[in-house]
Amino acid sequence: MYIRTGFEIAIACTAETPLLLALSLHSTYDNRIIGSDRIRIEPEVPMDEYIDSFGSRRTRLVAPVGSLGVWSDCIVEDSGLPDPYDWNANQHEIAELPSETLMYLSASRYCETDELVEQAWALFGETPPGWARVQAICNWVHNHLTFGYHFGRPTKTAVEAMRERTGVCRDFAHLSIALCRAMNIPARYASGYLGDIGAPPSGAGDFSAWFEAYLGDRWYTFDARHNTPRIGRVLMVRGHDAADVAMITSFGSYDLELFRVWTDEIHGLDTDRDRLRLLEVRPNAPALTLAPIERV
Amino acid sequence: MYIRTGFEIAIACTAETPLLLALSLHSTYDNRIIGSDRIRIEPEVPMDEYIDSFGSRRTRLVAPVGSLGVWSDCIVEDSGLPDPYDWNANQHEIAELPSETLMYLSASRYCETDELVEQAWALFGETPPGWARVQAICNWVHNHLTFGYHFGRPTKTAVEAMRERTGVCRDFAHLSIALCRAMNIPARYASGYLGDIGAPPSGAGDFSAWFEAYLGDRWYTFDARHNTPRIGRVLMVRGHDAADVAMITSFGSYDLELFRVWTDEIHGLDTDRDRLRLLEVRPNAPALTLAPIERV
Amino acid sequence: MYIRTGFEIAIACTAETPLLLALSLHSTYDNRIIGSDRIRIEPEVPMDEYIDSFGSRRTRLVAPVGSLGVWSDCIVEDSGLPDPYDWNANQHEIAELPSETLMYLSASRYCETDELVEQAWALFGETPPGWARVQAICNWVHNHLTFGYHFGRPTKTAVEAMRERTGVCRDFAHLSIALCRAMNIPARYASGYLGDIGAPPSGAGDFSAWFEAYLGDRWYTFDARHNTPRIGRVLMVRGHDAADVAMITSFGSYDLELFRVWTDEIHGLDTDRDRLRLLEVRPNAPALTLAPIERV
Amino acid sequence: MYIRTGFEIAIACTAETPLLLALSLHSTYDNRIIGSDRIRIEPEVPMDEYIDSFGSRRTRLVAPVGSLGVWSDCIVEDSGLPDPYDWNANQHEIAELPSETLMYLSASRYCETDELVEQAWALFGETPPGWARVQAICNWVHNHLTFGYHFGRPTKTAVEAMRERTGVCRDFAHLSIALCRAMNIPARYASGYLGDIGAPPSGAGDFSAWFEAYLGDRWYTFDARHNTPRIGRVLMVRGHDAADVAMITSFGSYDLELFRVWTDEIHGLDTDRDRLRLLEVRPNAPALTLAPIERV
Repeated sequence: MYIRTGFEIAIACTAETPLLLALSLHSTYDNRIIGSDRIRIEPEVPMDEYIDSFGSRRTRLVAPVGSLGVWSDCIVEDSGLPDPYDWNANQHEIAELPSETLMYLSASRYCETDELVEQAWALFGETPPGWARVQAICNWVHNHLTFGYHFGRPTKTAVEAMRERTGVCRDFAHLSIALCRAMNIPARYASGYLGDIGAPPSGAGDFSAWFEAYLGDRWYTFDARHNTPRIGRVLMVRGHDAADVAMITSFGSYDLELFRVWTDEIHGLDTDRDRLRLLEVRPNAPALTLAPIERV
Repeated sequence: MYIRTGFEIAIACTAETPLLLALSLHSTYDNRIIGSDRIRIEPEVPMDEYIDSFGSRRTRLVAPVGSLGVWSDCIVEDSGLPDPYDWNANQHEIAELPSETLMYLSASRYCETDELVEQAWALFGETPPGWARVQAICNWVHNHLTFGYHFGRPTKTAVEAMRERTGVCRDFAHLSIALCRAMNIPARYASGYLGDIGAPPSGAGDFSAWFEAYLGDRWYTFDARHNTPRIGRVLMVRGHDAADVAMITSFGSYDLELFRVWTDEIHGLDTDRDRLRLLEVRPNAPALTLAPIERV
Repeated sequence: MYIRTGFEIAIACTAETPLLLALSLHSTYDNRIIGSDRIRIEPEVPMDEYIDSFGSRRTRLVAPVGSLGVWSDCIVEDSGLPDPYDWNANQHEIAELPSETLMYLSASRYCETDELVEQAWALFGETPPGWARVQAICNWVHNHLTFGYHFGRPTKTAVEAMRERTGVCRDFAHLSIALCRAMNIPARYASGYLGDIGAPPSGAGDFSAWFEAYLGDRWYTFDARHNTPRIGRVLMVRGHDAADVAMITSFGSYDLELFRVWTDEIHGLDTDRDRLRLLEVRPNAPALTLAPIERV
Repeated sequence: MYIRTGFEIAIACTAETPLLLALSLHSTYDNRIIGSDRIRIEPEVPMDEYIDSFGSRRTRLVAPVGSLGVWSDCIVEDSGLPDPYDWNANQHEIAELPSETLMYLSASRYCETDELVEQAWALFGETPPGWARVQAICNWVHNHLTFGYHFGRPTKTAVEAMRERTGVCRDFAHLSIALCRAMNIPARYASGYLGDIGAPPSGAGDFSAWFEAYLGDRWYTFDARHNTPRIGRVLMVRGHDAADVAMITSFGSYDLELFRVWTDEIHGLDTDRDRLRLLEVRPNAPALTLAPIERV
């Protein structure tokens, strides 16, 4: 399956503003991209790219005074299969976990595992370890949190989502991660493109957040927000939690003037040359509604 | 200068309990150690050692039912000089910071930089950037926080320390780090041995926490708790904050039965052979008082 | 208009449990009641009744071991008119407020006015003082809080509702009260029966919470939850906030086995004797769903 | 014993500012005052006095633009005895408490009893009911909270003091009250003059806060801050907690320019005429240090 993914963002700054972006496809996609995954900006200013310690490709630049357009557009080859699952994937003893997974047992900024241990064991201590336990956590989070964009805020944590019973996809992920870690299952944050391929039409494409848990000798994708295997998840970044991988980190303020995302299956094109030609014109994805942030 | 550093800890478990230790000298000390920095345990059970992503040496084991002794004892060669300082060390523009320092600008579990930006700029926005700004932060934290062991708790964060105006060395470090990051200065947590060499006698040796800030193209040590350059700081671990480098992370509960630390200058021994002989008997450091943790 | 109001509650205790009830019609209804507003219990145990400092009628008893039924049923004569309003009702200068209204300017348990002054003035400082200002507060609360029974919890406060953007009727009232007080308008909590007379059918009768604000030399009823004048509001209790007038305060735990409320207009009965006869049989109000409270 | 009590406060306003004062001796002192307990202001503006629902005498006025002096000075006849105590004072069953004491079992703004029930029973469930239980609460609060003026803040609550382990006299009172109520003992806030009569000299006179608990058919004074019976406590106000009886409630901002308090035993004067003559000149109490409140 071929998926066209891209975004277009326009911001305006009143002073030169350093930006740190996490808007590229993950470094593991390299050989599955048609076209270029490069970040493009207008007007052109110098950009630096580096790969952070989680393998996420990051971009650094200084936004000039005035408007800045940032966009990217390419085609990704994808298996076309739903998120893999394995009901028999076992949970590892702490002593057997690969050492590089251990850091995903610790509390992090938005996943205060240390505050949730007691609640986690009360809720999930009786569930069978392994896949069923992570699924039980996803079910609980999916069923107890009410989704709503107005329930998001940049500093909202897992403990707060637990108490408030509300959140956006990021909060569903953070709470699930914090609960997994409390049950001694390594869990990490992931984010990327997720459209409505194989699911009921849901309007504009968008970025989404989910998480990965380490079971049966590998990392598996889980998504407490949708709580069903999805097709066409295109990974951009990973980290302990959203603190590591904010899409735009700005060192100074800016106005967001446009924000639109597309992530669509490509049908009826047989050659890469045809696919490349498609990229000559940016698609007409609708702008995501930019709720005016209230100053309260 | 030669410093003998070591500790002896005894714990008791009622079930097999996986432990993750951060009790070794930092990997950068390798060629400056006389004797062995190995962690020793009794009874002997299998141990794994690995180096985490911050360069800290970590040890993994499963504590058996009953008592477990853990100790280490060696001699470190040290410059004997106070923490270096450079009043002229400049603050880097975001765009000029090495990419590997950027992760130390983000909020982390106990350093909620994202909640402190406004307060940080109100307090330090008028200070000159660079060394003077970090020093101003240390001065403020040193002068506004009251130190006391009973003011510590495992989940205490920078925001809480700011509001409560109290803490232990860990809290002094966390608050300073969070404020530095809010002012766009990379800052990271560090912890190790710190005795009273070159300072008034302060009784038993102990572990201590401090922090490092990136200025003038390198990391410098700062310590808002003591707020004066110190001699004989022996580094064990580094991380975003204490969540990355808890001395003992246990996956299950244990009783702490003994906890003593020594960190003393060695005088009057001319050869490494003499120094090694010293290590044949463990020193008589007094046990640190183990305050019974109240269950409230 | 004649409204039949009543409730039936069944609880079970495993030990003798003192109870303090706030389940009677307010003392100001005395001459408008047909039948008896007395609280009835089964089995019969001694009860004390008193009127608290807010004019609310309170009942004290000790629940025996086992099941206890508590009910009341009577007919109230009501004007049949919607909540009165007066767009011209002025806001009083502090210096002109009657002294007995001043205590309703202070912060209270669930209305932390002292924490909300800055936000309140930012939101409502530009609104015209008087009725329009209280209405602006009701509009804001009505539009920004999402209603849901699962968003309620006994300790939830105005500040928490403000941050979480969710609540039950009690939270809508608390937040409105806290904001009014911050704008120097005396405001107090009220609670009682509210059915669906003159409104779209809404199923089972229920208790509801609203608030009163002091404008134009009197207290007026406001209801940010429904945010429209309602017919058939039957007052039970008033107080600073819900801390003063919990429906059931128990000094020990109990299980709630049944909870149903009725509040219906009586049609087609011409004499009080006919109305009294109606009270001989308790109505068939459905039991309110008793969500199992999760222990988390 | 005769005690001269008084204060002098100077404030400055940039706009007309309504003030509500709680700075008079409690209404129960009426027949024990030599001189006049009236509040005096300069320049003279109209003042209203009323007695609130707790029996506290309150004063209302509108501060003019510019400086306003507020003072009072009189002599109170006092028993000269320490706070009464009765180790045998029993704790009342809820069912036997006078109904007017029941409101002092509820949570209030700064005493979140509803959040502390579990902790209170864990700490004090084993203590004998009655006086010994209240004393145990005072001991615990006295021993676990560190006193310091810089640990006070206007919105600090009992739960926060419990967690932070710090406070001013107000916080010691709030936490004790919240814990008493959680143990079903009515408790209320009290505040007034407290000097160093019969205690080691402590410098300038001051206002202080303590609390009263209902035991053995009456209200008794307790003071977890000092935790010893004191001589010369002169009551000004009572309430649920400090939210009811702030010394100065201002509806607008002001600068505090002077704040001094005196409360001294009068020696060697035999007649009321002599005592009255003493009041002709205000005493030289030192001004209390006015710590500049940091804007953070």
